[in-house]
Amino acid sequence: MKVKVVTNILKANARIADDNRRLLHEKGIATVNLMSSPGAGKTTLLARTIRDLGARIRFGVVEGDIQGTHDAEVIAALGVPVIQINTAGGCHLDANMVQSVLPELPLETIDLLVIENVGNLVCPAEFDLGEDAKAMLLSITEGDDKPLKYPRMFRECEALLVNKIDLAPHLDVSLEKIRADALGLNPALRVFEVSARTGAGLEGWYAWLEGKLRH
Amino acid sequence: MKVKVVTNILKANARIADDNRRLLHEKGIATVNLMSSPGAGKTTLLARTIRDLGARIRFGVVEGDIQGTHDAEVIAALGVPVIQINTAGGCHLDANMVQSVLPELPLETIDLLVIENVGNLVCPAEFDLGEDAKAMLLSITEGDDKPLKYPRMFRECEALLVNKIDLAPHLDVSLEKIRADALGLNPALRVFEVSARTGAGLEGWYAWLEGKLRH
Repeated sequence: MKVKVVTNILKANARIADDNRRLLHEKGIATVNLMSSPGAGKTTLLARTIRDLGARIRFGVVEGDIQGTHDAEVIAALGVPVIQINTAGGCHLDANMVQSVLPELPLETIDLLVIENVGNLVCPAEFDLGEDAKAMLLSITEGDDKPLKYPRMFRECEALLVNKIDLAPHLDVSLEKIRADALGLNPALRVFEVSARTGAGLEGWYAWLEGKLRH
Repeated sequence: MKVKVVTNILKANARIADDNRRLLHEKGIATVNLMSSPGAGKTTLLARTIRDLGARIRFGVVEGDIQGTHDAEVIAALGVPVIQINTAGGCHLDANMVQSVLPELPLETIDLLVIENVGNLVCPAEFDLGEDAKAMLLSITEGDDKPLKYPRMFRECEALLVNKIDLAPHLDVSLEKIRADALGLNPALRVFEVSARTGAGLEGWYAWLEGKLRH
């Protein structure tokens, strides 16, 4: 019974995700679903990315949170169209939530839509939102054992940003182990070692994002 | 339909959790459900706690992970009985999973059972496992906005360990804001600022744990 319900939910989600993807492609929009544990730095990364690339890429943002509008306010202050989804306790975004807010975004003027998912290294990996690619952050403060403990997220993503490398001198963590274990799970994964706070290492991420643009 | 299924799952979970609690109390065991985001330091805290208190408290441990046995091996190396639950993708432990492994623990020789939940700041908060108290860690590297973004976890717990305070000089984070926002959500919350790595601030946590013992 439980399995059947979950299967039906995921099937319905996949159908709606495909509808989202079709609509976004009609508008020429590339979409990235950005995921991580709580506090790995998604919003800090996104704000810096918008500041650095905003002159040549028109961004739109969907912010997913259980409650509150803190991150959406950070993004709105950059002059970028942003819609907040509050899941009211839900642990991930799903395609239906995204579909419900797309009409509120000025889709004709967006090149790159970034969907910042709820902070959770487990559940969001299971739900296609209609994105072109999934990307994830792992803060090095979380430790180098995370790829092997949360394999699905690392398998689902095309890009991994290993964030907060400015803190490496103060931690007992191996960047080599993170990279090796992540690539062991997903050999095609693009791995970028970055600090969203200092800006270090972001060139590769920016080039990857620009490669996703559809026009 | 979806709501009904979820309600039934939570009702069934609550019944099994009560059975677990009854059994554990019959054995004189106090139980703590330990939760946090991935990489906040649950295992490091637990290992240090066992080393520091193991001479006067007999510990038992249930380790919850999506897959792997890394943490259980760390605990087993301390000579403490430990059982690994792998959720095979599941984002939280439930009472049924705990019930299924209790017979494998030497309950007659355990004073304090610690259940280390799956690393996730959302879903585990909803599931009573049969514990006497829930405790959580928040790593300060996750940022000071977390209480307001993940309120349920902070409301459900009796104790909050604000961990990795040794990294405070390298971060833009306010311990005062974490404390104030967490207490705003849950005025009865006991807040301990600690470093599981250095051992700083753990006296209060140890006293809290000892206060939970049932004999």
